[in-house]
Amino acid sequence: MKAFQEYYTDDFSHCFGCGTKNKNGHQLKTYWEGELTISVFRPRPEHTAVPGFVYGGLIASLIDCHSTASGSAALFNTDDKKEKYYPRCVTARLCVDYLKPTPIESELKLIGKINEIKGRKVIVKTELYADNEKCAEGEAIVIKINESFIGK
Amino acid sequence: MKAFQEYYTDDFSHCFGCGTKNKNGHQLKTYWEGELTISVFRPRPEHTAVPGFVYGGLIASLIDCHSTASGSAALFNTDDKKEKYYPRCVTARLCVDYLKPTPIESELKLIGKINEIKGRKVIVKTELYADNEKCAEGEAIVIKINESFIGK
Repeated sequence: MKAFQEYYTDDFSHCFGCGTKNKNGHQLKTYWEGELTISVFRPRPEHTAVPGFVYGGLIASLIDCHSTASGSAALFNTDDKKEKYYPRCVTARLCVDYLKPTPIESELKLIGKINEIKGRKVIVKTELYADNEKCAEGEAIVIKINESFIGK
Repeated sequence: MKAFQEYYTDDFSHCFGCGTKNKNGHQLKTYWEGELTISVFRPRPEHTAVPGFVYGGLIASLIDCHSTASGSAALFNTDDKKEKYYPRCVTARLCVDYLKPTPIESELKLIGKINEIKGRKVIVKTELYADNEKCAEGEAIVIKINESFIGK
């Protein structure tokens, strides 16, 4: 089964968080699980906040890329044309609540829910778990990219 | 002039975003400029979102670490005892608005404002500029760390 990120065009596959062509990046991969979207990520030792725990920027980054991918997949599913590639979304707004320290030695699981689709805009709610404990949750407003976004 | 992050104890200097002892990390440095707090960061080529622009996770990470440092410095200044080290803050909530694509070849400047101090809690508002254009802004609620945070 291919991840959402493997359905981006090459031009949109360079993201540090999720681009399949970014060798130095996180290469986050996201999949459907019923109506939810799932990503799994194992932090590296340098992703420390204070010893033993993950730094908040990584968590924000994972929720961000998980959300753009979820939005892309959701928009793809609503599009009757069924293009070969997924559309690429960018984030307009990201909010993260850090509920408890996230252990760095655990595999992190992100579970996303599509809360709203309106035109080019998707609102994605994501929960982040470590060892089955919810450590953070976030909401992102993501927007299908268009030419003017890059060109302006 | 020493940066806020150079006033953390060694235990609190391992953060990927701002720890002076994290050789693989961003090593963000933050300073007072009057009543505002300033950090400057130059993205690396791999910090791409789509070619030419910075990925959102980096921006969230920079605003996060800029905010925790700003909160630490603000709390230090309100403390009559004037300990040798700054207290360490962690983030409870982070919201980022991505206003426009952030060019990857520019030096990024973060300008923080202490909006509220209440006990151990500080609210920090941050604007992120590239080439004097505001590309993102964020608000973070940061909390002075205590023993129970790590131990729980």
